[in-house]
Order: sequence, then C-alpha cells, then structure tokens
Amino acid sequence: MSHEQFLDELISTLGADVAQRGADVPERYHTDWSGTPPQRPLALVRPRSTQEVSAVLRLCTAHKVAVVPQGGLTGLAGAAVPSQGAIALSLERMNTIESTDTRAGLMQVQAGVTLQAVQEAAVAAGMVFGVDLGARGSCQIGGNVATNAGGNGVLQHGMMREQLLGLEAVLADGTVLPMLRPMIKNNTGYDLKQFFIGAEGTLGVVTRVLLRLRPAPQATATTLVAMPDFDAALAVLKRMQSRFGNSVAAYELMWDSFVQASLSWLKLGAPFAESHPLLALINVDGKNESQLQGDVQQVLEEAMEAGEVLDAIVAQSVAQAQTLWKLREAPAELNNNMHPAINFDVSLPQADIGRFAQACEAAFSARWPGKHALYFGHVGDGNLHVSVDGKTVGGECEAVEAELYRLVGEFQGSVSAEHGIGLHKKPYLQASRTPQELAVMRSIKQALDPLGLMNPGKVFD
Amino acid sequence: MSHEQFLDELISTLGADVAQRGADVPERYHTDWSGTPPQRPLALVRPRSTQEVSAVLRLCTAHKVAVVPQGGLTGLAGAAVPSQGAIALSLERMNTIESTDTRAGLMQVQAGVTLQAVQEAAVAAGMVFGVDLGARGSCQIGGNVATNAGGNGVLQHGMMREQLLGLEAVLADGTVLPMLRPMIKNNTGYDLKQFFIGAEGTLGVVTRVLLRLRPAPQATATTLVAMPDFDAALAVLKRMQSRFGNSVAAYELMWDSFVQASLSWLKLGAPFAESHPLLALINVDGKNESQLQGDVQQVLEEAMEAGEVLDAIVAQSVAQAQTLWKLREAPAELNNNMHPAINFDVSLPQADIGRFAQACEAAFSARWPGKHALYFGHVGDGNLHVSVDGKTVGGECEAVEAELYRLVGEFQGSVSAEHGIGLHKKPYLQASRTPQELAVMRSIKQALDPLGLMNPGKVFD
Repeated sequence: MSHEQFLDELISTLGADVAQRGADVPERYHTDWSGTPPQRPLALVRPRSTQEVSAVLRLCTAHKVAVVPQGGLTGLAGAAVPSQGAIALSLERMNTIESTDTRAGLMQVQAGVTLQAVQEAAVAAGMVFGVDLGARGSCQIGGNVATNAGGNGVLQHGMMREQLLGLEAVLADGTVLPMLRPMIKNNTGYDLKQFFIGAEGTLGVVTRVLLRLRPAPQATATTLVAMPDFDAALAVLKRMQSRFGNSVAAYELMWDSFVQASLSWLKLGAPFAESHPLLALINVDGKNESQLQGDVQQVLEEAMEAGEVLDAIVAQSVAQAQTLWKLREAPAELNNNMHPAINFDVSLPQADIGRFAQACEAAFSARWPGKHALYFGHVGDGNLHVSVDGKTVGGECEAVEAELYRLVGEFQGSVSAEHGIGLHKKPYLQASRTPQELAVMRSIKQALDPLGLMNPGKVFD
Repeated sequence: MSHEQFLDELISTLGADVAQRGADVPERYHTDWSGTPPQRPLALVRPRSTQEVSAVLRLCTAHKVAVVPQGGLTGLAGAAVPSQGAIALSLERMNTIESTDTRAGLMQVQAGVTLQAVQEAAVAAGMVFGVDLGARGSCQIGGNVATNAGGNGVLQHGMMREQLLGLEAVLADGTVLPMLRPMIKNNTGYDLKQFFIGAEGTLGVVTRVLLRLRPAPQATATTLVAMPDFDAALAVLKRMQSRFGNSVAAYELMWDSFVQASLSWLKLGAPFAESHPLLALINVDGKNESQLQGDVQQVLEEAMEAGEVLDAIVAQSVAQAQTLWKLREAPAELNNNMHPAINFDVSLPQADIGRFAQACEAAFSARWPGKHALYFGHVGDGNLHVSVDGKTVGGECEAVEAELYRLVGEFQGSVSAEHGIGLHKKPYLQASRTPQELAVMRSIKQALDPLGLMNPGKVFD
C-alpha cells in the first residue's frame, strides 16, 4: 500500500487541521534540542484527544507506518527526532489541565501540558509539583513521563516515576489503557503504568497523567556556597541533610568552568569577589523564613570553621534567590555557545564524582589541549552533567563520547541518569545493561508493539 | 517425560539436602496464612544461591514443571500455596545480609532475609528501613517485593516499590537478571525491575534486593487518640500533617470492633476508661523527644477544642509507646479467633472510607444479623482492612466477598491495596482492571514466561 494512500486516509479521517503532509510540516518538528540532523516526517498529526490519538495509531497499524511521539522537543538524546518514513505525533494540542484536587493532592492533565503550566497551576492551588528542570517552559509532561525526567527536585521528591499515581497510554494498535485510578495503593496485577515511564515512546503514547502534588513549603532558604574541592562539597551536603533532613530541596553543584560560562553567556554579575573551584546552589524548606535563614547561616558557619566552605551568600529575598539561581541556567544557552555541544548525563557512585570529573578533564586535555568541558549536576542524586564544546575538539564528537563513556564504565556508572537513550546513546546502552536485560527489553517491546511501529530505532534497534 | 525422572534429575543435580520429594515435604510448605486448603507440592527445593535457583528453573523448563516461589508464607491472598504438580521453591536459606553502606544508605540482601532482620540490621547501622508490617518476623524481603508490600510506613516512605534501588531476578528459563546497580538515577532503557515488583512470582523469582535505608529519626512521639467519627479522624490526620509534614510516620485507624477484639485476644488492659467509636495510633518523628511530645500535645489540644478528639494518651516512654502499639497486633491472632477469617484489603478514595465501612456494616447486618466484622487500616494511604468471621456468617464466605466487592465497585475502589491478587482475588481482578489491561498483562506474562511455568494460576489464569 502506498504512502499516498495512507496520507489521504489520514487526512480524511482526522481532518486537514489535525494531519499535515510532510512537505507542509514546519521545520521545528524536524528535530529537537539534541542537535540531531533534521528529518522531515512523512506527516505531522496534532490530535486534540485520546480518541484522535487512538484513531491515528489504528491507521498507522493498518498501513504499517511508524510513529514518533513528540512533546516539547527539548530532549537531549534525540528520542523525538522523526525517523524516515515515520509520522510525527505531537501532543502539543492536548494541553488541558483537567482537574485539581488539593485535598487528595492530585492533578489530572493531558500529556501536552508544559511542565511550567503544571508548576504554576500547582502553586495557584497552594501546592507544588515535585519535578523541575531548565526546559520547564517548553517540555511537556508526557515527555517528562516518557523519559522519567529528573531535574532539581529529585533529592527531595524522587524522579517523575514517583510524581504520578496513574497515566493513560495508547498502544500501537490503538488500544487505550486508562490507568488513572486515583489510589496510592492498588496491587491488582502488574502495575502496567510503570512500563511506559522511561520507555521513550517505544511502547505506546502517553496521553494523560494523574500527577501527585506536594504541600507547598511555608518558607525556603536559598544559599550559594563556595567550596575548595569535591570532598568539601559532599561534606556540606551531608551536613545540611543531617541538620534539615528531607527538607534539603535542592543541591546543585557547579564547577568553576560552568560558572564562568554562565556569567559570560547570561551576562550576570559575579556573585563573589574571586572565583572558587566549586559553587553549590542549595534550597532548604522550612516553616519560618528568618529562622530558617538563621539556621542555614549557622550550618554554613560550622562548615566554614571546618574548612569546607570558603564563602557563602544566603539570599535575603525571593528576588535575590532567583538571581542566584540564574547561575544554573547556562544549559539553556549551550546550543548558542558551544555548537555542537556534546552533552553527557551520567550517574556515578556519589563519592566518586569529583575523581570522575578530574579523570575526564585529564583525558580530554591529553588529547585536545585546552579547556573544553563544563561540569555541573545534581550531585545529591549521584548525577553529573558534562558539556563539551564540539568545535574546539575539532569535531571529534564520537572520540569524546568514547573517552567519557570508557571512564563511566571504569567508575561503574550509568551512561544515562535522566536524559534517556534516544538515538544518541544507543551505542553505549550495553555499558549499563547486560545482554540478558537487553533481550528481555526486546521481548517486552515485541509483546506490546509486535509490528515495531512505536518510535522505531530509539533506545535499541 | 515422567515426574519421577524429573525428581531424580532434580535431586541428583541439587542434592538431597536442597531438593525433597513431595512425600517428604513438611506440612508448613503446603499452604500460607490465607487459609487456603493445603496442597502438597511435587517437590520442595530450598536453594542456597542464585546459581542454584537458576539450575532449578532450567530443569523445570526442560521438564515443563511449574514452580511456586515461597517466602515467609504469610500472604493473605494465597499466592504462595503450591499448585498441583508444581514444585515449591523456598527462598528461606538465602537469608544473608550481603552488605550495608550507611554513607549511601543502601543494604544488599538475599531474598529470604526476614523483614525483621532487615529492620534490625538497619537500626544497628544507625538507620531505618521504610517498610513495616505485622508479619515482620516471618515474612521475607523477596515476598515483600513480589507483593509490593505496604504496611505502617507507607504514609512517610511509600510502598516497597519505593524502598529499593535494584533487584536480581531469575526467569523461568534460568536467565539471571542482575539489576543491582547502586544508582538512584539510571534511565537506560526499560526499568525491568519494576516488572517483578508486585508480580507475585508470576514473571520470575526475586533472589536479591538492593534496599534503600532512611536516616533514623532522632525522636519519635507516639499517641493514641480517641475520636467520635471518621470525619474527625480525617481532620486530625490533616491537622497533624499540616503541623508536622512528612514527619507524620504512621496513622493507623482502628474501629471499636477491632479494638475490642485486640483487647480480648491479646489480653491487654483498656487504654481509656470508656470505649470510643475510633482510635488512631499516630507516630510523629522529630529531633527532640520532650519538645516533640509537647508539640503533639498542643495539636491534640487544638483538635480537642475543635471537637475532633475525645481523649488522648501521649506515650512518655518507648515502653509505653510499644504497649500502645500492641493494640494494632490483633491481625496476628485472626486465624486463631475468627477461623476462617475472611480478610479484605481495599483501597478507597480517602474521604469515603467512613461511609464505606458503614455501608459494609449495614449490608452485613441485613443478611447476617449481629456483628461479624472488624475494621482497621492505613487510612492515611486510603487503605482499609476488613476481617469477617467466617463461622458466624454460616460459612457463606463467597457471599460476604461478593457483597463487599460490590460496594468497592460502587465506591470506585481497588479490590487489593497491598495484599495482591494471588488465588483468592482472581474473580474480582476485573473490578479494578479493564479487559484491555488484562490483555496486556497476559502478553507480558507470555513474553517473560512463554511456557507458563511461573506460579501458574495466580493473579490471572
């Protein structure tokens, strides 16, 4: 059966408003933030309801046409980049917040709602949503689910997997699985929703999500802390957690290379008179703002006496806290300043992260003299990000990747902490999974998507 | 191929110490706490290592013999009861705590370690483990994983699914999946360990678990609170959570019928001069014991002024707290006093639990005049337990079940919150899952266990 026939049927079924032929598809749907070379999809569909998603998938199954689900297109592993001959299925029109129940702490949304819209709606309801990441204004909840997103809130609340009670997904054949029961405890057979979290759209399309909201903290203290080395950074984290427990809401570590890039790209004023090897942005939740600031100050003074802290700023207002947090926003400018940026997102045993960063720096310098890499990350979760300037290493992106992933193997880490595998990390998946695990993944894929139509060529071949 | 030949091969491969013929299998392996009629297994194997588990499963696959994994045999849904012609695979000898890492908050154990042994080892290391339930002295971690156990700690820490970073499982064909990487974040393909949590042994045998430990609270206040009705109980819970946040570690509600049973079966002294409609056992964690007790006292006084609390005891010592908690231990005596006990474990929208209990009481009284049922549960999680005395309803167990599950459907609840489906709730699984979901469960089962040898006839047929 020809593609032409499929396209005719697609447009006549869904309408020209929902379905567009490839030639008419705007370029923004051709790739994502990963820098993958653009690929025009066979068609773009932008359904408005689960029923329309189901209709699209039924048609695709009938015509054996592949489907690439698209959210906010902010992924860094290329999972949402169209593959040849596949249609792109954008969830962007399914952007309704369907219900908010503050008593039960639940919010039901369609998958195309942006993370920021969810955060704002939660705050408007007097609560908070536990996931936060830099792409919040563009990324969509469905994509957050499909990649099991992490970000700045994991230390306190866990990953996306822990932020939802249910989801609705549509399988390749159009079957709708409405797993949206609003219950914390529901041990009735296999917990199918788990299969779709982190599957990067290869098992089905997430269309609705039942999110958990958290009580809003009454006060938050923000501090920016300068430290001499990684062991000091870890000691400060432990000191904070020992004093404030699970109220330590964020602990973001930035190596000086990253801080300098942020200051320059974002045209920010330097926070300290001199530069320091490491800065940490720390949020602590509590009840009373001035008391909390005092308590944080006290812990910092103890840490300073112990030689762990060189300098520190405790924000005295929300505005000052926001200014401090701007320092962490360099990643949004990576593609403008380090093109092509080679981005890494690795998990490591927490205690080894400092040595790992040193080993990377040594390996890169040996081969490509000079400074090319920024180091930063969610160190409280054992998660380090590294961004390398592809230009300054003579375009040898694959050699950079091989070098870094070799070190990840040596340190017994994971090649993807929170960004997923997508297209770009497929060659390295076997570094984090055994052949037996990969075989089971393939059998699950075969069970749920026997024709191999859901996001083919992503995660594994 | 005959069973005799299989048994000869099993014993010659594993040794007579590990493998016993059915005729030699002690009765305690014939059934579990669910009260299911005993069934002698074809053989009992008690492997000492993952390698031996794998060898057993390879042999079973070669001979097409079914396998029923057994932990502490404390399940209330019958998932560990042998099925005819199947061997029983007990994990009881795999009871080693392999490593404890207090810095990372991790403990790796074999699946046959009892929950209590894990709890005690965590405390010895200055931390706590987040799962606690009445069968702690007998139930095993592998069974806790296989049933996604809940219990008294869910309010603060979540279910068993949230208490582990990794697990090792063996598939029906003997394949070992060593998913034990000690990382919080590891988004590398499908998170296969999720598939085995709550699958009740129907997809494979859990052999090792990498558990998360939590920091030990510096102080805990325990209070027993008497309340006039369910709405008051909910108001007190909200009041406590609003004051103490996630430090409210337990909130166990007991209806008077349950309290009277506990007092009588366990020969305890009545905590209050008169009986009250509802009692709640509440634990709150904090830093300083006397200050915490004062804070709890203050909240209780406010609640008393608001008419939510009728009377209360704040424990002044660990010993007094333990005495108060004894009230919650009646379930261990159910089989001695209500034989056969018909046990329910349902999830409901939290706000409706009081009305649900009333509706059950009305429905039971209409058909079987008199009092037959105890009501208690983890109300903070929306989870209610009901135990009915099978004798006093004239042995009409199925009619009691049909009546209660009809009401669960009416209230849009779940037929199993934390006990699983096993054998006993199979007829009611469809009340909580759609036909489409059940079809997907079957396709997953087919993918991982194509010969249908893993715990056949459990969860679904």
